[in-house]
Amino acid sequence: MKHLLLLAALAASFVLPVYGAEPAPIPSPGEIAAAAPASDWIVIAPSDLLVMDLEPDATGEPRRVVIQLMPAPFSQGWIGNIRKLAAAHWWDGTSINRVQDNYVAQWGDATEKKALPAGLAVVPEGEYVVSRAGAAAWDAARAMQRSAPLIPDPYASSQALWGWPVGRGKDGELWPVHCYGAVGVGRNMSPDTGSGAELYAVIGHAPRHLDRNIAVVGRVVSGIEHLSSLPRGTGALGFYEDATERVGITSIRVATELPTADQPRFEYLSTESDSFARYADARQNRRDPFFIKPAGGADICNIPVPVRPVAAK
Amino acid sequence: MKHLLLLAALAASFVLPVYGAEPAPIPSPGEIAAAAPASDWIVIAPSDLLVMDLEPDATGEPRRVVIQLMPAPFSQGWIGNIRKLAAAHWWDGTSINRVQDNYVAQWGDATEKKALPAGLAVVPEGEYVVSRAGAAAWDAARAMQRSAPLIPDPYASSQALWGWPVGRGKDGELWPVHCYGAVGVGRNMSPDTGSGAELYAVIGHAPRHLDRNIAVVGRVVSGIEHLSSLPRGTGALGFYEDATERVGITSIRVATELPTADQPRFEYLSTESDSFARYADARQNRRDPFFIKPAGGADICNIPVPVRPVAAK
Repeated sequence: MKHLLLLAALAASFVLPVYGAEPAPIPSPGEIAAAAPASDWIVIAPSDLLVMDLEPDATGEPRRVVIQLMPAPFSQGWIGNIRKLAAAHWWDGTSINRVQDNYVAQWGDATEKKALPAGLAVVPEGEYVVSRAGAAAWDAARAMQRSAPLIPDPYASSQALWGWPVGRGKDGELWPVHCYGAVGVGRNMSPDTGSGAELYAVIGHAPRHLDRNIAVVGRVVSGIEHLSSLPRGTGALGFYEDATERVGITSIRVATELPTADQPRFEYLSTESDSFARYADARQNRRDPFFIKPAGGADICNIPVPVRPVAAK
Repeated sequence: MKHLLLLAALAASFVLPVYGAEPAPIPSPGEIAAAAPASDWIVIAPSDLLVMDLEPDATGEPRRVVIQLMPAPFSQGWIGNIRKLAAAHWWDGTSINRVQDNYVAQWGDATEKKALPAGLAVVPEGEYVVSRAGAAAWDAARAMQRSAPLIPDPYASSQALWGWPVGRGKDGELWPVHCYGAVGVGRNMSPDTGSGAELYAVIGHAPRHLDRNIAVVGRVVSGIEHLSSLPRGTGALGFYEDATERVGITSIRVATELPTADQPRFEYLSTESDSFARYADARQNRRDPFFIKPAGGADICNIPVPVRPVAAK
């Protein structure tokens, strides 16, 4: 309620003309985020960043993709496996093997024969959601109330931007949502076959039908264009038919394993901040000068949480 | 209602085991479309196809993008302009100038100085929607009732797949929806500045906030990957900063202007067919073997109308 009132007050202040001057244009969502005070931004711990370096492109330019790993209580069985795989340098020398238009780019061991490190968990399908009890234990309900108000969509009884896009079902369970840039765990037909060694990133319209059917373990915070602009595979499901089409992965590391000078640093706009509430309202009702008709709402994937590099001091 | 009952009957038939045999797996949406009878497919008139040939890629492969133009009653002012621009060969020698990740690829005259052909209409912003009266005159209400039932989303009071994704507002007006692959008319700040000479295609999550703010004039039915996999521009809004990055457009023609042997032929699944109703239900409730939990709904852009080349006889 506090946010709603604040929004009303702000909207009024934006349209009041200043006598003797042009009325200030209403800011765009990006301008609202850029104007947020430093205290509204939360630095992502380097231990939660997964850094994927691809072989350089044809012109020799480096290609780095940075992924923020999903925090508790979501998908933690797979997150544990991913940390072990990175620590074992298991992905080094593997490749991007599948790029399907308007869907996913997927990477891992193209031979499907590379031995996995010891000690990976077999994660049961129950972990695709967090139960009502689990959510309550995590005080998630309180966090969800703090989120900017959102109109429900066909995929969830309610939803929240709680650092990450989260759906909630009728039974109170919570799940992470497949938006553009989401990173998930590939699997075979059996729900417990996904170890975390085979990962994909969403490069098209949000495939929300995958929610609760497959694990979301992170989101790309930088370098998604190195995946989304790759040539599409011409085989079934977008797999590359010729091994030479695959893009090699030089290494994947948790950022804390990299030399300090090479560690990327990112921060995101707190979804509990007033700045975020204004940003989310502006994403749902564009009133900046280009727009004629505010939409009156947005699906949760059209309100991406702003993420940016931490400015050098 | 007919569709709903039919769906229930079909769903039951899919899960009934055949004694002495494995139960047949429930078909995927793609399998349902592929199994639709020939009579459920509607051939797109060549006069409604816009064929954009780009300069060949680095390996010499041709790159063709085929766009279906939006039928009446939508966006017809701009469609008329686009036909005139194609007839004048106006786009030949222009280029793709902007590729913004998770948003659009845009093409036209990079200099913004090329003279337009005479006789282009200035289309008023009112044409971004079809009024209730216009919709009634076109018998759209009847067509919308025939569409597969869809759960509304935050962007429209109701919506329909009526050959194309269409939203409807509280006042009864209709508008075409910006889904992946939608083609729209770039414009400047003033709503009537878009002639149709500057076009874009959506290559990311559906930017539904553009609905009713900008004209949708078609959809890419083939070759979207030649746009979506282009390198992203590094300038503001994804514009290429260096002219050498632009991808040249060899020609844009309405298909009827091409030699018969070179005319592409496509057909789409009738959205009034029982096959489409089953397809739409399956897109909303995936029950094919990979899936554990059907979503129970889908946003309209996750139910793309199936389009395929017409098979050679």
